[in-house]
Amino acid sequence: MGERIPHWLDKQASLNPQRTAIETSDGRNISFSELREKSRRMAGELMKNGVKQDDHIALIASNSTLYTVFIHAVSYVGAVAVLLNTRLTAAEITYQLTDAHVSHLFSDDHHVPVAAESVTEMNLEVHRLEHLKMEKGVPHELQTDLDLDDVYTMMYTSGTTGNPKAVMHTYGNHWHSAVASALNLGTGEKDKWLNCLPLFHVGGFSILMKSVVYGMPVMLFEKFDACKVHEAVMEKGVTHVSVVTVMLQRLIEMLDDGTYPDDFRCMLLGGGPVPEVLLEKASVKGIPVFQTYGMTETSSQIATLSPEFAFSKLGSAGKALSSAHLYIDCNERGEVGEIIVRGPMVSKGYYNREKRENAYLRTGDLGFEDEDGFLFVVDRVKDVIISGGENIYPAEVESVLSSMPGVREAGVAGRPDEHWGEVPAAYIVTEDGSSLTDEEVLNWCRKRLAKYKCPKEVHWIDELPRNASNKLLRRDLSSCLKQGGDE
Amino acid sequence: MGERIPHWLDKQASLNPQRTAIETSDGRNISFSELREKSRRMAGELMKNGVKQDDHIALIASNSTLYTVFIHAVSYVGAVAVLLNTRLTAAEITYQLTDAHVSHLFSDDHHVPVAAESVTEMNLEVHRLEHLKMEKGVPHELQTDLDLDDVYTMMYTSGTTGNPKAVMHTYGNHWHSAVASALNLGTGEKDKWLNCLPLFHVGGFSILMKSVVYGMPVMLFEKFDACKVHEAVMEKGVTHVSVVTVMLQRLIEMLDDGTYPDDFRCMLLGGGPVPEVLLEKASVKGIPVFQTYGMTETSSQIATLSPEFAFSKLGSAGKALSSAHLYIDCNERGEVGEIIVRGPMVSKGYYNREKRENAYLRTGDLGFEDEDGFLFVVDRVKDVIISGGENIYPAEVESVLSSMPGVREAGVAGRPDEHWGEVPAAYIVTEDGSSLTDEEVLNWCRKRLAKYKCPKEVHWIDELPRNASNKLLRRDLSSCLKQGGDE
Repeated sequence: MGERIPHWLDKQASLNPQRTAIETSDGRNISFSELREKSRRMAGELMKNGVKQDDHIALIASNSTLYTVFIHAVSYVGAVAVLLNTRLTAAEITYQLTDAHVSHLFSDDHHVPVAAESVTEMNLEVHRLEHLKMEKGVPHELQTDLDLDDVYTMMYTSGTTGNPKAVMHTYGNHWHSAVASALNLGTGEKDKWLNCLPLFHVGGFSILMKSVVYGMPVMLFEKFDACKVHEAVMEKGVTHVSVVTVMLQRLIEMLDDGTYPDDFRCMLLGGGPVPEVLLEKASVKGIPVFQTYGMTETSSQIATLSPEFAFSKLGSAGKALSSAHLYIDCNERGEVGEIIVRGPMVSKGYYNREKRENAYLRTGDLGFEDEDGFLFVVDRVKDVIISGGENIYPAEVESVLSSMPGVREAGVAGRPDEHWGEVPAAYIVTEDGSSLTDEEVLNWCRKRLAKYKCPKEVHWIDELPRNASNKLLRRDLSSCLKQGGDE
Repeated sequence: MGERIPHWLDKQASLNPQRTAIETSDGRNISFSELREKSRRMAGELMKNGVKQDDHIALIASNSTLYTVFIHAVSYVGAVAVLLNTRLTAAEITYQLTDAHVSHLFSDDHHVPVAAESVTEMNLEVHRLEHLKMEKGVPHELQTDLDLDDVYTMMYTSGTTGNPKAVMHTYGNHWHSAVASALNLGTGEKDKWLNCLPLFHVGGFSILMKSVVYGMPVMLFEKFDACKVHEAVMEKGVTHVSVVTVMLQRLIEMLDDGTYPDDFRCMLLGGGPVPEVLLEKASVKGIPVFQTYGMTETSSQIATLSPEFAFSKLGSAGKALSSAHLYIDCNERGEVGEIIVRGPMVSKGYYNREKRENAYLRTGDLGFEDEDGFLFVVDRVKDVIISGGENIYPAEVESVLSSMPGVREAGVAGRPDEHWGEVPAAYIVTEDGSSLTDEEVLNWCRKRLAKYKCPKEVHWIDELPRNASNKLLRRDLSSCLKQGGDE
């Protein structure tokens, strides 16, 4: 048994009963006291539907207040929430429900068809989230404490190869993640964090955890909408937004010649390597971008570039947060190697898989530390292109491509080559009205990259393949061509 | 083994190398990077002097940068710091050195005489803090991690009866205390906390912990000096000060008709019951006083009145911090009962004494929660005067006495009475030039207190007996008389 703390929502409802917990994009506010009441009622409903302590219960739903209520209801029951990606096919859902030993499946109305299809051959029914009667009167068996060692959530990682695996997060993982972020960014009474990331990914989920650990309002969006997010930042007192690269790009475009309000403190940027040109644009416009490094296994960011170095170390993901260690598996500082992390926010392992032997997590990401100890994430180990014995990091080539006028975004992946083993291929989405040629792109690269790093072919596509959290899926780049590319 | 985190000073030296860690009252600054270097050098020196991991090493010294360096050096060695009260007699020191199984005693120059006297019959020598050579070159065996379950410090509680006991604090107790305070008060880049409390008490020590957990500058004073503290708040960017009642009183007097700068955020008031008249004066002057409740066993405050309620709940110590539970041992809300606490900042027990059976600490303090769940501390269980079967809380009577014009401060204690068992006696320190009479004081009380609560006698004394952390020692009130009172 681990350290126990009072249930965090009980605590906020006691400390800050009237403070807004959740503000929706259509302007409805729910206080911590109301959120607690709703969550406890839903907990009662879950129990009436047969959910017991330690049960694994799955949810497939879009972001909503009800999603938040469900999340907290699960903790009042002491069950484990298996949060399903809404983009999954029925077959993928079936796999995860089986793998995670799920006892109950909940779905919002919109996802009932796929949910129903997923359980056709299983002994599971689909409970509709909106149909749960939230009646007055709460059973007495609800949890009043949280044991930091208890598992709270499971989220499947996309996994570049093999079947997806369920990352287990304890209450302690989420709590320590929120605390480490607070110690890094500071917290204040004016803070209001906008979430437009899916709650079934840790980037979005962690914002709900920050809300309940800090007693902070969260403005919860169903999904990213550049206009609405821009408006919220400009006019609605939002101080923090978590984004991935493509979102930042759209927000910068929205800003035109303006600047964000003075109270805006932090654009937390995650989700993988970022083209430097984008960071420069943000810097020019005075947007306080905090580049981060993290993954599902680290319960959100584990390294962040601190305010003082936001511009002098452009492109770095900073240093490991206060309770975390970060090492590079290399012989001497400056060398690229696999990133290894450790800390109380790092998941202890995957459900139903072999246990990790020690506290150190090999991330599968490559990076290096500069002379001042700042982390630069280079690429995924598995995305590295090995060409004639040389390592080519797709992110580096993409960064060069993205900086070219007329290029909206770019992806780079290896393709087999008889002579070199592999060679890099470029996949480009152009700005509207742009009429770039292969030759122009190749010339741009030749001036800026060593010869072996230059793409050997250029493909023009409509859209980069991304997963539900908007991460670039390089392994799917070549299949874009068949679905309507240039060839 | 508990959760492990990177050594907090290494971490701050990495994250914020140039940021000021310690600023002394004479304006000398030491950065986190310098503090780390000095602390590691001193760790090396301690080891050369024979200090090993898990050794109990005692320090008797006044507040200084060197004290801070020593504290961190101990953590690099992995030893346990036994922090001695500088007001102790040699015999009291001998008792604590023996009881705590101390292997090494360190002293600053000023305290060498009493330290030397304390070890005359022991097999211990006195190491002079200032004589430790802080040579370059650091041994390799220094701790790089802190195990949150390891004991870090021992501080003796004064104890109202019996021998003093050493409260053991783990790294986790101190870390959780600092984090809980951060989540309560918020943290920001401008924060600078002034410490004028002795470092051998948890109130002062905890500020050093906040410094190294948050990466926050601390302005460290050797002792409380009203003029200097006032000046620092007015002119040197201090945002937080921790005080006890008597200090707050003097600071309010210094303020005259002025107000504190806008950036001043928090006057953290601890050390026991506070006369309401003082809180009202602070309120009138716009001083953001945060009344707290805590003790050595809770590693500093465990309850604090949050900003929103600072004035509407005047006199309350607020609610338990986010990771802490607080209960009143009573039948229904509103009743006075013993305060019981639980949480990761609560010490697991006393060194060399019977272990506590569970996680709940009975504090020996009396209090009640109002209808909104706010804690009001009433008094020490042991100070309660039982008169004719009625409970009289000295703090209540003192509060009435303190509000009387001409009274500077007041103490109340029981004295034996044949008829009633005990009756309250008042001990009063007057303002300069005041010429109050017994009868005036008794009349003042009769108008404001039930008859049984009114003091049966009034004594005029020069000074209230206080311990090294300025807490009123009611059990010593009667002995003040013999040492120069009015009788």
